[in-house]
Amino acid sequence: MSSTASKLDPDRQLPSSGQRSSCYHKGLNYLTNSPKKADRCSSRTKNGKFPDTTNTPLRNLALCRKPPGSVSPAKRQINEVKETKTTVNCVTFPLPGEGPEQQLLKPNEWSYCDYFWADKKDPQGTTHVTGFEVLLQKQLKGKQLQKEMAEFIHERIKIEEEYAKNLSKLSLSPLAAQEEGTLGEAWTQLKKSLHDEAEVHLKFSNKLHTEVEKPLLTFRCDNFKKDLKKYDHHIADLRKQLASRFAGVEKARKALADRQKDLEVKTQQLEIKLSNKTEEDIKKARRKSTQAGDDLMRSLDLYNQTQSKWFEEMVTTSMELEKLEVERVEWIQQHLRQYTTLRHETDMFNQSTVEPVDQLLQNVDPAKDRELWVKENKTGEVRPVDLDI
Amino acid sequence: MSSTASKLDPDRQLPSSGQRSSCYHKGLNYLTNSPKKADRCSSRTKNGKFPDTTNTPLRNLALCRKPPGSVSPAKRQINEVKETKTTVNCVTFPLPGEGPEQQLLKPNEWSYCDYFWADKKDPQGTTHVTGFEVLLQKQLKGKQLQKEMAEFIHERIKIEEEYAKNLSKLSLSPLAAQEEGTLGEAWTQLKKSLHDEAEVHLKFSNKLHTEVEKPLLTFRCDNFKKDLKKYDHHIADLRKQLASRFAGVEKARKALADRQKDLEVKTQQLEIKLSNKTEEDIKKARRKSTQAGDDLMRSLDLYNQTQSKWFEEMVTTSMELEKLEVERVEWIQQHLRQYTTLRHETDMFNQSTVEPVDQLLQNVDPAKDRELWVKENKTGEVRPVDLDI
Repeated sequence: MSSTASKLDPDRQLPSSGQRSSCYHKGLNYLTNSPKKADRCSSRTKNGKFPDTTNTPLRNLALCRKPPGSVSPAKRQINEVKETKTTVNCVTFPLPGEGPEQQLLKPNEWSYCDYFWADKKDPQGTTHVTGFEVLLQKQLKGKQLQKEMAEFIHERIKIEEEYAKNLSKLSLSPLAAQEEGTLGEAWTQLKKSLHDEAEVHLKFSNKLHTEVEKPLLTFRCDNFKKDLKKYDHHIADLRKQLASRFAGVEKARKALADRQKDLEVKTQQLEIKLSNKTEEDIKKARRKSTQAGDDLMRSLDLYNQTQSKWFEEMVTTSMELEKLEVERVEWIQQHLRQYTTLRHETDMFNQSTVEPVDQLLQNVDPAKDRELWVKENKTGEVRPVDLDI
Repeated sequence: MSSTASKLDPDRQLPSSGQRSSCYHKGLNYLTNSPKKADRCSSRTKNGKFPDTTNTPLRNLALCRKPPGSVSPAKRQINEVKETKTTVNCVTFPLPGEGPEQQLLKPNEWSYCDYFWADKKDPQGTTHVTGFEVLLQKQLKGKQLQKEMAEFIHERIKIEEEYAKNLSKLSLSPLAAQEEGTLGEAWTQLKKSLHDEAEVHLKFSNKLHTEVEKPLLTFRCDNFKKDLKKYDHHIADLRKQLASRFAGVEKARKALADRQKDLEVKTQQLEIKLSNKTEEDIKKARRKSTQAGDDLMRSLDLYNQTQSKWFEEMVTTSMELEKLEVERVEWIQQHLRQYTTLRHETDMFNQSTVEPVDQLLQNVDPAKDRELWVKENKTGEVRPVDLDI
């Protein structure tokens, strides 16, 4: 599987590590961005996949506590900063028009691996369905339809058997069995031809069973659904892991924000010379802030590693499902073709059941039949003569 | 009818009047022949057609009364005389090897009119069946067989209707109706093709009804049996008349025999001069004997006229029945041919129901179906990117 994935240009599927900003002093942006994020998070919580850790009262507090009118250098920075990514259900996407242009992994192929990255609301709109589940549903439906086709063929088989039964029963009927001569022979053959027809239809139904119904029924019988479940669990586990890793990131961000606020407060105290021992405090606060920044970077790395693992599994597995669907369609096509072939055969063989009847009908000859009958039933050919004394 | 009869050479079918012996003085033969005739008559009486008028006690008496050893000139004549004809059930035939050689009326045709002149014992051997009744039985049986063939076709029609009903019912089944794309189109057409097949078989059963069953059923429906009865009664009446005419002949023969015996007695009395007034008696007896001879000739004429009328009716009617049988065989042949034609059509039309399915199966394309499905079901093609601060 991973081999399939490695075929893809990693730079196109995931940003190179070079793109990763490691300057956590931009961390300030985060603070003011967080409400925006919070909106997304609150919408996110609808699917109840994981708790929203960004929209805590504490954070709001931090925002409200700022004295009105005061404009910090951080604030100035904010206006220059622009959001370039969005995280939905813990998966991070570039915003429209942001980041490097994405080419399709398999252009012009309408490959599953290119079109099922986002989750979608399910019909009831209460929960979300992942793109991968949509692919799985397609597989399960395909399996079901294939089973229904087999059922249909089975019904056809029963109809053919019934028809054959009735034909061969009628062919044994004694009706007009006493017809004699060449006409009698033609009639006997006509009755026999019904038995031959019955044979043709019986053969048809038998072949339908072995060459169409069974293959449709047994194709991917047992293991298929197990395999799908395996895929499903594997991908779902990665999504769970992704969620907890994202929670870790959020937690680290909050810690960093607290540290930075503490540093900011201490810096102001230094400016207004409130105490003399602040130099020491600022050093200590900066060290703690740096520490929090490193923690955030680590949790970001963990998150991104998981997301890229999920990404690779999505690509390889969806391409596997794509292959399975191609096989299903071709398998069904092949066996429905077998159906039409058998139908054609049946019509051909049926033709041949009538030909001997045609032959004997050609030979029907009233004069010949009279000769046969007269020879068998004549009473006397000496004609009467006059009586005399 | 009579025109057909007149085509036949009367000399061949009946002895010319020239052959008739008008010399009733050979009447003597009759006397001594009569026991032989009596045998025939007694066998004749078995069929109870008319009473035996020749084997009366009186006749036996007449035979027994002859004084032993006496040989009359008549007796001498007898030995020269030879029987040339035999009368069975009142119909008179030449004895084997007697009379002019008979050619068939219609040589090499096995025509009914040449082979049904004699009566035959019926299976139980109790009564006789006339040759004409044998021909009538053939007609009635033919009618019955034709009716049975119609029944057989009717059964086939019911089978086709049932088959068509099941096929079109199945074609409406919702099974696998959700299959999509090119495969879905092919599947839908396959299901529809069952409805088309049903139509083909329904059309077959309808045509079987109008073009085979009905013609077989209605051919000579009502009048046929009436016509046969007419023929039957007509011929039977002539046979009855023939019987009574033959009784008349037998009676006249007996009367003549009595007269001749009386004459013989009187002649003997004259020889031995028993009385003188015998001359007168002999004249009187000879006149009466001549009178009885004329009566016999008249009744023979009546008998022969009736036999020749019966003969003509037998020829014309049996040739009519022969024509009817030829028509029946050709009619059945023609409509069984229609049956095979319809069967061939059905197979042809059936072929055509599968072709559109073949077409659409050709067009099945997994890539195309994926494109259609992806376009409809994709959740998002923007790929995830690394999260950063």
